[in-house]
Amino acid sequence: MFNYTATYTDQYQLTMAQAYFLNGQKENIAVFDYFFRKLPFEGGYAVFAGLEDLLNIIGDLEFTKDDLEFLRSKGFHHDFIEYLENFRFRGDIYSSFEGDLVFPARPVLQVEANIIEAQIVETILLNMLNFQSLIATKASRMRYAAGENALIDFGLRRAQGPGGYYASRAAFIGGFNATSNIVAGRDYGIPVSGTMAHSYIQSFDDELAAFNHFADVNPIDCVLLVDTYDTLNSGVPNAVITAKRMEEKGHRLQGIRLDSGDLAYLSKKSREILDKAGLNYVKIAVSNQLDEYIIKSLKGQEAPIDVFGVGTNLVIGHPDAALDGVYKMSFSDGKPRIKISENVTKITLPHRKQVLRVLENGGTFAGADVITLRNEDDAEMMYHPLFPHKTLAVANKKKEALLHKVMEGGKRSSEPLNLTQIAQYSRERLNLLPDEYKRFDNPHAYKVGLSEKLLKERNKLIEDHK
Amino acid sequence: MFNYTATYTDQYQLTMAQAYFLNGQKENIAVFDYFFRKLPFEGGYAVFAGLEDLLNIIGDLEFTKDDLEFLRSKGFHHDFIEYLENFRFRGDIYSSFEGDLVFPARPVLQVEANIIEAQIVETILLNMLNFQSLIATKASRMRYAAGENALIDFGLRRAQGPGGYYASRAAFIGGFNATSNIVAGRDYGIPVSGTMAHSYIQSFDDELAAFNHFADVNPIDCVLLVDTYDTLNSGVPNAVITAKRMEEKGHRLQGIRLDSGDLAYLSKKSREILDKAGLNYVKIAVSNQLDEYIIKSLKGQEAPIDVFGVGTNLVIGHPDAALDGVYKMSFSDGKPRIKISENVTKITLPHRKQVLRVLENGGTFAGADVITLRNEDDAEMMYHPLFPHKTLAVANKKKEALLHKVMEGGKRSSEPLNLTQIAQYSRERLNLLPDEYKRFDNPHAYKVGLSEKLLKERNKLIEDHK
Repeated sequence: MFNYTATYTDQYQLTMAQAYFLNGQKENIAVFDYFFRKLPFEGGYAVFAGLEDLLNIIGDLEFTKDDLEFLRSKGFHHDFIEYLENFRFRGDIYSSFEGDLVFPARPVLQVEANIIEAQIVETILLNMLNFQSLIATKASRMRYAAGENALIDFGLRRAQGPGGYYASRAAFIGGFNATSNIVAGRDYGIPVSGTMAHSYIQSFDDELAAFNHFADVNPIDCVLLVDTYDTLNSGVPNAVITAKRMEEKGHRLQGIRLDSGDLAYLSKKSREILDKAGLNYVKIAVSNQLDEYIIKSLKGQEAPIDVFGVGTNLVIGHPDAALDGVYKMSFSDGKPRIKISENVTKITLPHRKQVLRVLENGGTFAGADVITLRNEDDAEMMYHPLFPHKTLAVANKKKEALLHKVMEGGKRSSEPLNLTQIAQYSRERLNLLPDEYKRFDNPHAYKVGLSEKLLKERNKLIEDHK
Repeated sequence: MFNYTATYTDQYQLTMAQAYFLNGQKENIAVFDYFFRKLPFEGGYAVFAGLEDLLNIIGDLEFTKDDLEFLRSKGFHHDFIEYLENFRFRGDIYSSFEGDLVFPARPVLQVEANIIEAQIVETILLNMLNFQSLIATKASRMRYAAGENALIDFGLRRAQGPGGYYASRAAFIGGFNATSNIVAGRDYGIPVSGTMAHSYIQSFDDELAAFNHFADVNPIDCVLLVDTYDTLNSGVPNAVITAKRMEEKGHRLQGIRLDSGDLAYLSKKSREILDKAGLNYVKIAVSNQLDEYIIKSLKGQEAPIDVFGVGTNLVIGHPDAALDGVYKMSFSDGKPRIKISENVTKITLPHRKQVLRVLENGGTFAGADVITLRNEDDAEMMYHPLFPHKTLAVANKKKEALLHKVMEGGKRSSEPLNLTQIAQYSRERLNLLPDEYKRFDNPHAYKVGLSEKLLKERNKLIEDHK
């Protein structure tokens, strides 16, 4: 495996950096916006995740001897290589808090640094934030569907290689309770969970012997997988026998797990069998290609399920599998910058900026974020060319500034947060978002607009380019 | 970032391992099959990838002090932790060669080891092989569409975190020529490529100045991005000016890149402008949400494109984003094992096995793989319960055994292959596959069947479980 070094980037970042360096532009200060254009999963919000990891990586980023040797072999200029020897990211980062809810076409984060540093961190920034935000958003939808039931991430085997490590982290931010992924548990303090696979049952000559042996060595935390041969005629009845045997020794079977078949039907029938045997304390866990829609459907059918184990569809962020976040220059060399496009939704926003979230009196989100120049105190919300909706009168409403300085001169501005704090913050933010933005079908569109000053600056730059 | 240690696994592997250990079953030899059930992308084949990485990781796998401390804190038994201190994978692995074409429901790889070792490696095995095979397959489809044109991987920023590292590797196996991903280039010897982003153009007051500066410091390998403001009225004409300026200094502009708009139309118009200026040597590269279908369409429209840069859809394996590979026990404790299911496609195949590929006289693939017991010399191909097709008479045809011992007693059986060798092998194998299995729409189904002996063994075990 590799470590994150400053070569975890796209070649063109270094080609451009070298050009800036050789043209004497290395002190040119640039500002870049990180934002995305489309919400994943046809949903009404996204959960911003990956920031703490990113800040840790960026704070330590440098070129190793091997990196520099490699770049030398690729023909990069000697003076530029020498410059890279002392490369550190020394810029500022303004960001939404990790776990906050974010919406399209507004800066989620801004980087302000000399242009070489700002370019070199682009790839790792996009790679980390796009992916973790995608998965935290997916997890949050499953949490919404599951209500108070437990959600466990089982996805590592189907994850996109080591992406599974960050998927488990992001899932916890989005509301999962535990993971099967031990490395993520070890490094991030996520509760780890897992009991047995079909192979365990298969390795014994009969199912009951497998259950009893397993219960003997796992008297406290025993969950039995009941669908290896025949769920209702063999698996659950055998689990009952094992549970009774455990009771005799003063223990309790924690649960059974269903991993195939019609989970609504089988969970109801299994619940009946367990309850008839006086085992109403035994929980039912299910797995097998779950997603938020299946969880919602099972809940709607009143399937007596206590724990949902989710794999593939969580950790790859099915069906989107990528968040389309981009990193666009908004200021450079003392001037605001813009990218023009025939496609009006692809014209970028110039200048250093702030984002204000409009709040209702009670503190809930009013369904509108206003993008302003960084130091505007307050603003009405104007039409956003990307989202055709009316000007909203919001000047008299309470607002919350969303972008905070989290890194200054390459150093973190505040203490790192642990994952539990971030997940807790995300839950609080989600509680402030009205339900109509959370529903799966045609969620209400959260509005994003520009301040009048920013709109004027944008229009002026478009004119200048004509 | 983490390193691959033996805790890169699911919790239940260790819960089961502990149960085996405490029950005195740690010397129980088990055999597991790695296979998948469904071809990705509705295609006709898959490209097997990830094996070399997997063997490297498994060969070095151990529990670190931190891992053991963590497991101790999670309540694992003292004697088991002590056992894990000396854990190494000491088993055998039989596998298809990396880069070979593989089909559903037949073993791609078999692990034979004591049951604890075999379980602990399951998660990393699935994680690595599922993902790299998915991406190599996707890349191979793009190669099929692109013909002889160059394909460059631009995907790191949209990859699923560090999964992007292996995506770049797998893309090269599948037929890509280069990557923007420097770390993958450094570690795997993949050619790296990349020139400039829109931000480079934006950071100058005008486009021509940006082009000229860039050409001055990149006289050999200069590709200009021409769509920042207006492709045909500004970008390409400015590129022509820069190219002429380069010619005066004895250099040649390598190419221009189009990253938005109608790529067929813009490439044709750009080609006209370039050719009229006598710049017929300047290549045209395109990017922007490409996939195999768009590449095929552009080729069908005779768009004069030389280089395709592909990002998101390659590195996440859109739209599937996961290969459904599984790892199922087929032998344990001296006996063949099976998993029964109501769903006949989920019944597993018992025993140690071999796979024979039926060949035409000229050596091309005859469209049939026969799964046999490991030591059968030859076999007719019988009906496979998973794929309803007729028995094929193949006993007189030439056959190639596909599973090779690649690890014995935890040591590799042969020298590692480099990535170029693997990609070359994959290309050769693809050349042996008739076109009807390669086409995108309703590709012909490659047949997979069982030998008569294996079919009888399977049916007997099903009967035994009734």
